[in-house]
Amino acid sequence: MLRGIEDYIDIVGAEVISKIYKKASKLYNKHIININSTFQGGGVAEILSRLVPMMNQAGVNTGWRILHGNPAFFGITKKFHNALQGGSINLSPMKQKIYLETNQEFASYTHIDHDCVVLHDPQPLPLVKFCRKQQPWIWRCHIDLTNPNPELWNFLKQYILRYDRVILSSEAYKKKDLPVDQRVIHPAIDPLSLKNKDLSEKDILKYITKAGIPTDKPVITQVSRMDPWKDPEGLLDVYRIVKDKVDCRLLYCYNMASDDPQGVEIYSRLYKKAKDLIETGDVIFVVGNNDILVNAIQRFSDVVIQKSTKEGFSLTITEALWKGKAVVASNVGGIPAQIKDGKNGFLIDPHNKKECADRIIRLLKDPDMAKEMGQRAKEYVRQNFLTTRLLLDYLDLISELV
Amino acid sequence: MLRGIEDYIDIVGAEVISKIYKKASKLYNKHIININSTFQGGGVAEILSRLVPMMNQAGVNTGWRILHGNPAFFGITKKFHNALQGGSINLSPMKQKIYLETNQEFASYTHIDHDCVVLHDPQPLPLVKFCRKQQPWIWRCHIDLTNPNPELWNFLKQYILRYDRVILSSEAYKKKDLPVDQRVIHPAIDPLSLKNKDLSEKDILKYITKAGIPTDKPVITQVSRMDPWKDPEGLLDVYRIVKDKVDCRLLYCYNMASDDPQGVEIYSRLYKKAKDLIETGDVIFVVGNNDILVNAIQRFSDVVIQKSTKEGFSLTITEALWKGKAVVASNVGGIPAQIKDGKNGFLIDPHNKKECADRIIRLLKDPDMAKEMGQRAKEYVRQNFLTTRLLLDYLDLISELV
Repeated sequence: MLRGIEDYIDIVGAEVISKIYKKASKLYNKHIININSTFQGGGVAEILSRLVPMMNQAGVNTGWRILHGNPAFFGITKKFHNALQGGSINLSPMKQKIYLETNQEFASYTHIDHDCVVLHDPQPLPLVKFCRKQQPWIWRCHIDLTNPNPELWNFLKQYILRYDRVILSSEAYKKKDLPVDQRVIHPAIDPLSLKNKDLSEKDILKYITKAGIPTDKPVITQVSRMDPWKDPEGLLDVYRIVKDKVDCRLLYCYNMASDDPQGVEIYSRLYKKAKDLIETGDVIFVVGNNDILVNAIQRFSDVVIQKSTKEGFSLTITEALWKGKAVVASNVGGIPAQIKDGKNGFLIDPHNKKECADRIIRLLKDPDMAKEMGQRAKEYVRQNFLTTRLLLDYLDLISELV
Repeated sequence: MLRGIEDYIDIVGAEVISKIYKKASKLYNKHIININSTFQGGGVAEILSRLVPMMNQAGVNTGWRILHGNPAFFGITKKFHNALQGGSINLSPMKQKIYLETNQEFASYTHIDHDCVVLHDPQPLPLVKFCRKQQPWIWRCHIDLTNPNPELWNFLKQYILRYDRVILSSEAYKKKDLPVDQRVIHPAIDPLSLKNKDLSEKDILKYITKAGIPTDKPVITQVSRMDPWKDPEGLLDVYRIVKDKVDCRLLYCYNMASDDPQGVEIYSRLYKKAKDLIETGDVIFVVGNNDILVNAIQRFSDVVIQKSTKEGFSLTITEALWKGKAVVASNVGGIPAQIKDGKNGFLIDPHNKKECADRIIRLLKDPDMAKEMGQRAKEYVRQNFLTTRLLLDYLDLISELV
């Protein structure tokens, strides 16, 4: 049985459900189309895989298309992603050509006669140039745009200018030099997905044991890709400080796309750096390609960490907060929208390892405080970062434009 | 610049191009939709990535959607693929449920109001059950259906019955117990793609050398996935017989999906079995994830082999034939449609290694014969297995139904 909107009543209350149907009714007979570049892996795919079916259940015809690209194209757009977060890039004519031609080719067989187009992230951005624009186009960017590479930003800006609305994940990402109406919508998680649904203590232990994780010591965890922005090496340094004060294990639950050469490199370097701790079983790497295992790991952890230096929003934090965990995370990007320092978690300076270790130690030493923070965290997510709220925001957004 | 239909004039002649436009004109204002499950890797994606843009250039609005699935779903449909080719399967209720629900979920946000639907292979097959069918549906199956697992066949048949037409790659795949109009359309290759376009001798040597392949001995090559149906171990036995008579190298240009555990297993076993020959540099594995390298390897090879025990059609054979190569391939599945034994290549019994080795030896010892066969092979592909012919067949097929 596919999940329905009504399945969320017990979590968000009947009023929210009723509001969804009411707002959706303004869009009857409209046809909306979402376009992104993957249906697997990453927060955007996770969001759309719930949001799009729910829009349809609410009565709004909503489609979801995947931009077709080859490995060269995805290599380039990965570089774009990094450069939009502040990295450098060699924006060669060949890169521009492949980027544009992939979109042009896709446009040649993608017939957009919808009432509204919602495009996600930079991969399909220039599609707007290759389609006959006859409806509002929304660019939904999930990336930390605080400090984009100027050359790339100027290149992309020419396409963004064609859009009617730009949606960002944080106020801080709004660009002064972009004369397009910019709004903030926070991403959200699905509380009923395999990754987030409730698990019994018995099930948690079952999955943890099956994954070979010992249960004799407290566990601190980071769930993230092998990506320099996630600062896995800094995390390791923090763990060494923590372990001097409180005996515990570090779980690094990572995801690595097979076509991501950067990920492999970072993994190797990290492995070398952590070799002694891996051998004693104190640092454990777990492949997080199994949603229910990630769910169990987050629930089993005593403290969840996110030591990133950049984060568009960080849905893995949202997931941990929703599981009632005390989270220690960097005060960057979309994170302060989720964590109120000292109330429902701790915000730290990503360059201050001592501070980070100190907060983890405090939480490990004071489980009651950790539990209280976790409860506030869960409530905060319920009010702000669940799929139902995101759905309402999308309905408002589209209703304004069509 | 994107490729246009007119770019094929020099290869197939003006008459074919004109015929395409004429046939397409019967479908003006019609809207056709293709659905398969990947835009990367595999023959179906390769075919659609050329066919769909060409349909649009010819004036027929033609879309291409990708079924969205998770790894569990694709694990199951891979098993389906193997069982349709005669393997066994445990068709558990859980497998059926995931297979059907993935299609049901996709249907919930895929709005099909087109004039004709063309579905490819078993992954999206049951979609027809979850959509309001109000137009002709065509099931295009690229798999060797000579001897499908009966339990799976019966399970899938209930969905196939809803289709208006079934398209197969060989007469031998037609099923007597299927009261649906079944036709044969042979797949085709794009002569202008990176994988098939002309390369200068200089470029061929450049790519071969860059890939670390020595050029001092004749080379025999198989290009295929690491898949039991491709019989890589049998190929190795054949090579040992050949090498006793003619000193040459074996190139195994393989493709392996990162999410394919079976591929990794086969690779390891093969590596062990070939260890002595790998160490002497006589057997060389090359990862074929680079189209232009595969192109160069096929052109550089003295003989191309396809020792499969099952082949839906085998586009890698078509590619080699198009490059004017003498091909030695098993007399199975779609292969005899391409190779006329002793004329444009050699057909062998896949279980007779001596016979296979004998044909390879004959070709290595008589390069003039190999060249002559190769020329006939290229001409045969030009007449029968290029994208332009496939496009004409599709235009006919759809015109009959809409």
